Amino acid sequence: MSTHYTPPLTEMVFALEHLVDLEGLIAVSGPSHADLQTTAAVLEEAAKLFGGAFAETSRPADVEGCRIEDGAVQLPEGMSGAYRLFVEGGWMGLSSPMEFGGAKFPACVGAAVDEMMAAANTSLSLLPGLTRHGIELFLDHASDEQKQLYLPKLISGEWSATMCLTEPQAGSDVGQVRTRAERQADGSYRVFGTKIFITFGEHDLTRNIVHLVLARTPDAPRGTRGISLFIVPKYLVAEDGALGERNDVRCLSIERKVGIHGSPTCTLSFGDAGRGAVATLVGEECRGMRQMFTMMNTARLAIGLTGLSIAERAYQRAVEYAKERRQGRSIGGDGSEPVPILRHPDVRRTLMTMRSQIDAMRALVYVTAALVDRARHHPDEEARSAAQHRADLLTPVVKAWCTDLGSEVASMAMQVFGGMGYIEETGVAQLWRDARIGAIYEGTNGIQALDLIGRKLALGGGATIRELIDEMACEALSLPDADSCGQEGDLAAIRRELEPAVAALEKATLWIFGSGLSDPEGAAAGATPYLRLLGTVAGAHLLARSAQRASELLTEPGETAYPVAFLRAKIASARFFAEQMLPTATALLGPITRGKRAFFAIPEEDWGA
Amino acid sequence: MSTHYTPPLTEMVFALEHLVDLEGLIAVSGPSHADLQTTAAVLEEAAKLFGGAFAETSRPADVEGCRIEDGAVQLPEGMSGAYRLFVEGGWMGLSSPMEFGGAKFPACVGAAVDEMMAAANTSLSLLPGLTRHGIELFLDHASDEQKQLYLPKLISGEWSATMCLTEPQAGSDVGQVRTRAERQADGSYRVFGTKIFITFGEHDLTRNIVHLVLARTPDAPRGTRGISLFIVPKYLVAEDGALGERNDVRCLSIERKVGIHGSPTCTLSFGDAGRGAVATLVGEECRGMRQMFTMMNTARLAIGLTGLSIAERAYQRAVEYAKERRQGRSIGGDGSEPVPILRHPDVRRTLMTMRSQIDAMRALVYVTAALVDRARHHPDEEARSAAQHRADLLTPVVKAWCTDLGSEVASMAMQVFGGMGYIEETGVAQLWRDARIGAIYEGTNGIQALDLIGRKLALGGGATIRELIDEMACEALSLPDADSCGQEGDLAAIRRELEPAVAALEKATLWIFGSGLSDPEGAAAGATPYLRLLGTVAGAHLLARSAQRASELLTEPGETAYPVAFLRAKIASARFFAEQMLPTATALLGPITRGKRAFFAIPEEDWGA
Repeated sequence: MSTHYTPPLTEMVFALEHLVDLEGLIAVSGPSHADLQTTAAVLEEAAKLFGGAFAETSRPADVEGCRIEDGAVQLPEGMSGAYRLFVEGGWMGLSSPMEFGGAKFPACVGAAVDEMMAAANTSLSLLPGLTRHGIELFLDHASDEQKQLYLPKLISGEWSATMCLTEPQAGSDVGQVRTRAERQADGSYRVFGTKIFITFGEHDLTRNIVHLVLARTPDAPRGTRGISLFIVPKYLVAEDGALGERNDVRCLSIERKVGIHGSPTCTLSFGDAGRGAVATLVGEECRGMRQMFTMMNTARLAIGLTGLSIAERAYQRAVEYAKERRQGRSIGGDGSEPVPILRHPDVRRTLMTMRSQIDAMRALVYVTAALVDRARHHPDEEARSAAQHRADLLTPVVKAWCTDLGSEVASMAMQVFGGMGYIEETGVAQLWRDARIGAIYEGTNGIQALDLIGRKLALGGGATIRELIDEMACEALSLPDADSCGQEGDLAAIRRELEPAVAALEKATLWIFGSGLSDPEGAAAGATPYLRLLGTVAGAHLLARSAQRASELLTEPGETAYPVAFLRAKIASARFFAEQMLPTATALLGPITRGKRAFFAIPEEDWGA
Repeated sequence: MSTHYTPPLTEMVFALEHLVDLEGLIAVSGPSHADLQTTAAVLEEAAKLFGGAFAETSRPADVEGCRIEDGAVQLPEGMSGAYRLFVEGGWMGLSSPMEFGGAKFPACVGAAVDEMMAAANTSLSLLPGLTRHGIELFLDHASDEQKQLYLPKLISGEWSATMCLTEPQAGSDVGQVRTRAERQADGSYRVFGTKIFITFGEHDLTRNIVHLVLARTPDAPRGTRGISLFIVPKYLVAEDGALGERNDVRCLSIERKVGIHGSPTCTLSFGDAGRGAVATLVGEECRGMRQMFTMMNTARLAIGLTGLSIAERAYQRAVEYAKERRQGRSIGGDGSEPVPILRHPDVRRTLMTMRSQIDAMRALVYVTAALVDRARHHPDEEARSAAQHRADLLTPVVKAWCTDLGSEVASMAMQVFGGMGYIEETGVAQLWRDARIGAIYEGTNGIQALDLIGRKLALGGGATIRELIDEMACEALSLPDADSCGQEGDLAAIRRELEPAVAALEKATLWIFGSGLSDPEGAAAGATPYLRLLGTVAGAHLLARSAQRASELLTEPGETAYPVAFLRAKIASARFFAEQMLPTATALLGPITRGKRAFFAIPEEDWGA
């Protein structure tokens, strides 16, 4: 049975051209070398690696898993070779600044490449992912000296990075971090403590590992305000960049996880040998949380993207199986031979659900990545700020909504496989296990929902969400109305579902603003369905735009680069999403606004286990 | 970390007393010894075994798994001891007829015991489960001689049974079975062929294994009409019941599965040695499918029940963790110490969702089991027939809705555990993996949905579903209206949600009836959301009844056996389910009735993988 992965290049280019408006983006924000044609060529090149050698490592990585011996982590076979090809191809630096060796492609193009990478081998993709977040952090907060010392090696992929936040008592509640950092006379620090759940905390794929560690200085205030951020390299780095002796960081153990078996999840001990792990402060003391947030936002977008990636790979497997597997007759068919299960309406429902949700996720992820590009490079400050706000608003949505859907889509693929889906040999169950972590790490999806209603709705004094909703409402109104037929009829059908959905989103938003003032606990009780509503409506709105563009391309005179069948499928997918996915999302208005009464009707002492 | 399981006895007794009306049931249909007090005592006794020794085998079974050596299957340690206690306790025969050694308790009481068993060790519970389905099949279809020979040993638990349906090319499409049975001069048969996915197809927990095998006689018609059912014992059984030589049945291999590692899933080869496996026909030739359906219906209810069981165990783990784990402050709270996460509204939402869905599942499962009791033992033929029809109608709903919810609830438990939920050590991920098979085997949930709309809605010419909906509508109207407050206010809130939900169910049903005639493929396209709608409304309706009874008990003068906090929680759970779960189900009316247009807009040839 094939476990092949084919990067969906046409889908990617369509999303970049028509949803992101890549040409428009680079005309204003640059860089000029990232035009659509070049970008398409870059993606084709990436597809060779990620659809090839990289993708082949995915199954063996799951089956073999990681091992630890005397503090050294053994990765599954094949991972090292795939990573080497990745480094040699220069992919690590794709969207990094040129001054440190990067190729400065926009983040939205990077997102397309990342989509392939995470689909090809989710476990392995976490390593460059973490390094990328580390690069962002260095760019935003490190000193020039630190940048010069670390960035070229990180951007080339020769070194990797980790995020060391979690401790047993400090998970979602990072303020409880106890790892301590002692200031030395020379201005350096020594770090003591234990961190858990450190992805790629120890491995031998890179010559050095740069741990970015949250720790507390002795005189710091309690809680998050007393946390500082430190660079703790696995091997000490001399001023000339040469690697010195091993730092006092040890991997004590790795976790036996449900999935992503190819990525070692480490418990790291700092300063175990007694002298402390040698560390360098990033910026000033007690700024660690704010600095780490830079990294966490990039990380959250990347994790959301992984939901899309796994969903796409699961979808490809499911379609392939549904075309091959013959069971049962067609309803109303007269043949006596079993037909491909693709022909059965319930299987078609499942596949269309997967497909349209993937379309929606890809649209939302790429568009959000392009907002990051605008926020960084738009010449106008106001435009930068508006883009940043909208990116901030959508970040928890991308993270939570896409990881939830990623799990759901992977589960649907198992269902298409029937009994074979439950057998590990098929490999489709791996996708389901791998996807499940997405809703948990980088802040559980519940935390994302609270971040959305607690902080993100308030951005720009509420203007950020307001403008997004207004834009959606306007776009819905720009669709043809109910009397149309043909492709117009599809657009009209989308409008029929989208209008009430946007209205429900607006009401829910106003309700949360209202209760946020009078009853924050009640608002929090509605956070999770609110995020789901926002994600679904945002996705539907982008699919509506996609259907509109596809419809124009089909009717415009002149040639289009996209096959007619592809454009028709885009319209079908958007309509399916609107008709099948939007109504239940719209109905979340009730659950969101019912308030907390029923949540807290059972007193705490009556919750017997 | 505790992996304890506490059978929820009060919940069970409440459901049996107030939703099933056990006293009313046995007053009419017997048996008189199964009164509420005796039943409660039986459940308490069962709780000692299943909350104790049985539950302790669950984790080791997952970790160790099954192995095969020279065709012999090694089960994980502890399984054998737990099964022996089960046999010694006489639990196998709890609801079997007395003439073969059973205790003849109603099926609804059996359901409560089965709930505990499947929660305690899902893998191990499959063995008695299959034996029970085999017992049903013998009772309904076997000759007196076969009954005398096999039933006492099956009912005592000394022998076990299997269901041998699936072959590589014959999964959902059982009509494609190729295993052949050759008639012998002495009236016996010889079976040749290979069966896959045979649960407990080989093991040493029982002295004999009775394989119930679907096979095709040489001159039989094609498809399901040519299939016969055979008894193929692992060890031949002499006329006096003595065990003879080993039959020609071999276990070739076992599957490496995502979960239920404690249950061996076997590939069985019949007649591999050349002479054929010695077999006895059940009833007449070519009746195999109809006979197997007896077994499959019982099996489908049992699998649905397993969804409830796993959900309950996952819920208990999640509540325990949410009370222990401290992270973050209360919203609006002034404390600086982290609080138990149970206090956070989003965690409370998750736990209430789990709890109310478990309440709804338990209600539906027990009530359906009681319908089976009525169908078998009610003195009035018309009442028997009506009960049978309703049980048939609800069987696919119990199977699919409860297994879907079982997976969802187990996933929510992982989410409550955060990062720890993804670590196998915690054991909560096992529940999630174990639950996932429920939606697949005994007919995928898609098949259940098609069975529901294709066959079950048509029962009694449509009267069966009609009467159920009418009953729900009447019960909704019997709730106090919107102006009430206090506990009345809770009931009024439930009514406000239930009325439109029942109306949506009615409209959806009529739509399916209409398109069933004109466009069966379009009706099939709506099958899955229709089943979800029916399950949710049926669950909500039973929870409304439960809240109404709890409310009466709280206000009635005189003592009640149920704690006040318990009764209040029942009302809270019902209201939560109505307010939080019903609205999205109600909104499925749209997706159900949108028809197949968007499903088939992409032509078959354009589904590229």
